[in-house]
Amino acid sequence: MTQGPSKRALGIDFGGTSVKLAVVNDLGEIEKRAVFSTAESAIPAAWLDAVEVACKEMGLERESVRDALVGIGVGAPGFVDYTAGHVHDLTNVRGWKDVQLRGLIEERFRIPAYIDNDVNAMAAGECAFGAGRDYSHAVFVTLGTGVGGGLLVDGRIFRGAHSMAGEIGHMSVQLDGVKSPQGIGGLEQYVGNRRLADKAKRAIKRGTKSLIVDLVDGDLNAISPKVIATAARKGDELALGVFDFAAKCLASAFASLIYLIQPQAIIVGGGVAQSGKVLFDPLQAHLKERLSPVFYERVEIKMAKLGNDAGVIGSASLAMR
Amino acid sequence: MTQGPSKRALGIDFGGTSVKLAVVNDLGEIEKRAVFSTAESAIPAAWLDAVEVACKEMGLERESVRDALVGIGVGAPGFVDYTAGHVHDLTNVRGWKDVQLRGLIEERFRIPAYIDNDVNAMAAGECAFGAGRDYSHAVFVTLGTGVGGGLLVDGRIFRGAHSMAGEIGHMSVQLDGVKSPQGIGGLEQYVGNRRLADKAKRAIKRGTKSLIVDLVDGDLNAISPKVIATAARKGDELALGVFDFAAKCLASAFASLIYLIQPQAIIVGGGVAQSGKVLFDPLQAHLKERLSPVFYERVEIKMAKLGNDAGVIGSASLAMR
Repeated sequence: MTQGPSKRALGIDFGGTSVKLAVVNDLGEIEKRAVFSTAESAIPAAWLDAVEVACKEMGLERESVRDALVGIGVGAPGFVDYTAGHVHDLTNVRGWKDVQLRGLIEERFRIPAYIDNDVNAMAAGECAFGAGRDYSHAVFVTLGTGVGGGLLVDGRIFRGAHSMAGEIGHMSVQLDGVKSPQGIGGLEQYVGNRRLADKAKRAIKRGTKSLIVDLVDGDLNAISPKVIATAARKGDELALGVFDFAAKCLASAFASLIYLIQPQAIIVGGGVAQSGKVLFDPLQAHLKERLSPVFYERVEIKMAKLGNDAGVIGSASLAMR
Repeated sequence: MTQGPSKRALGIDFGGTSVKLAVVNDLGEIEKRAVFSTAESAIPAAWLDAVEVACKEMGLERESVRDALVGIGVGAPGFVDYTAGHVHDLTNVRGWKDVQLRGLIEERFRIPAYIDNDVNAMAAGECAFGAGRDYSHAVFVTLGTGVGGGLLVDGRIFRGAHSMAGEIGHMSVQLDGVKSPQGIGGLEQYVGNRRLADKAKRAIKRGTKSLIVDLVDGDLNAISPKVIATAARKGDELALGVFDFAAKCLASAFASLIYLIQPQAIIVGGGVAQSGKVLFDPLQAHLKERLSPVFYERVEIKMAKLGNDAGVIGSASLAMR
């Protein structure tokens, strides 16, 4: 007989568009959900009110939160000091500069609160309940508009000297590569969503034949990694080439990080990771070419498991450790 | 009044040519030294005998080692499992495959022994007694024939999932770069001793004028990083160019590792680091260009302090923690 859940936490996935909430139990299962619009909660006080309303929708009055839950975890999109529970700045949310969010939540709900950046929260979730649960040393990477990362060291999220570690998207893969405010040759400049779409678009404009053109009905601005993946699965050469290049860039950064910190596994999530085999097969091949066998044989590359729920489950897991 | 030393350990710097030994106190001072030739101690039993003889030279009979010292630390050049105290394989020393060195030392001297790879031992020494003593998150890099690395995380040497972390020399700085058994574009392929000398040599053979030619009396095979540094200090353009290129490659790998694990400091030692300003000035400049200000302002690049004694002091420090 399997044991039932013994405790629950509220996970808040604070996104640029919407704020998703869920009551998650210690088996990693979502028991209740709610959501509100980020725009409706521009300032922290309004955000707290909206969280309170969402809790009510999930059957939790303000006074009962404390009895039903062990804590509240928040994953926020930006620069966050986990130790202080302090939000320095949220890239895509106005009005959130220097907010002592932990203090505000604890005052309102009289329950321990934990604030981390969104990718760290997702990494914590994958490691507690997803593809990383068997590892104590793992790296979590999200592939989307940008490339984010979270590190698990000795079973805990590793934050570095000033809470800013894990910026895999800014690791350099090219000595004289693309310049950005974060440096030169950063991984994100090669494998971000838009970069992949642009690469396909440019090749088509140069005259390369591709199934992609049909898939978007000739509207090249509609090209997305998802469309490219569909074409790749049907054997389209251009599409396969785009994924091979993305895989090579990822493998370069992964090889560097494996040589540096030697994790047991790298767990890859986010939209682009949904492409599946067309990304992961060339990724394994390039990685094999870029690592000595003693390192290659000792690391696993895995697809993330929690999908769109990684944010809420991960945020909740911050409060359940 | 400063406090005197309260304990001592034996540090053994096991090199490919010679084995250096020193009694080191807990202020990081060397009190006695000895040395024997690596060739004279091909097999572990002969090596242990030679250590015993060296101890006698330093006034320590086999029976008194236990009373005089808290432990013995060994830094060995190769693949070592620190936790098991086991030497898997030493790259440049024949006859050392699968040796349970900790067990052998503890049996002979009846005192705790600690075995680590040489770069980790040096990193431990710099962090305990050298340029890293103020940091709990630091990266130690040695620049020589190869490029080695050791990581300090939360005040302890970090070894990764299988005791092999810290291989900074194999981090990739170039997507389609130089191939080696360790991968593609590895840092060491660009900034190793011989690579720097070859770079200067090739330019001179192509007809570039340089002070270097005079410094080696026309013998291009005598070119070394030391000679190039001397020329650079006198303003020689070719020599300055060689160091600028090395600095750019180092800065690329350093930027990647800073984004990934955000140490407080990177401590650079080994022969090439002795070049001083001609290396460190362009290194700072390139690093500034390759990091966002919030990261650049939060990391220090320092020259190692222990020099040739880093090995014995570091090995001894393993036994004093």
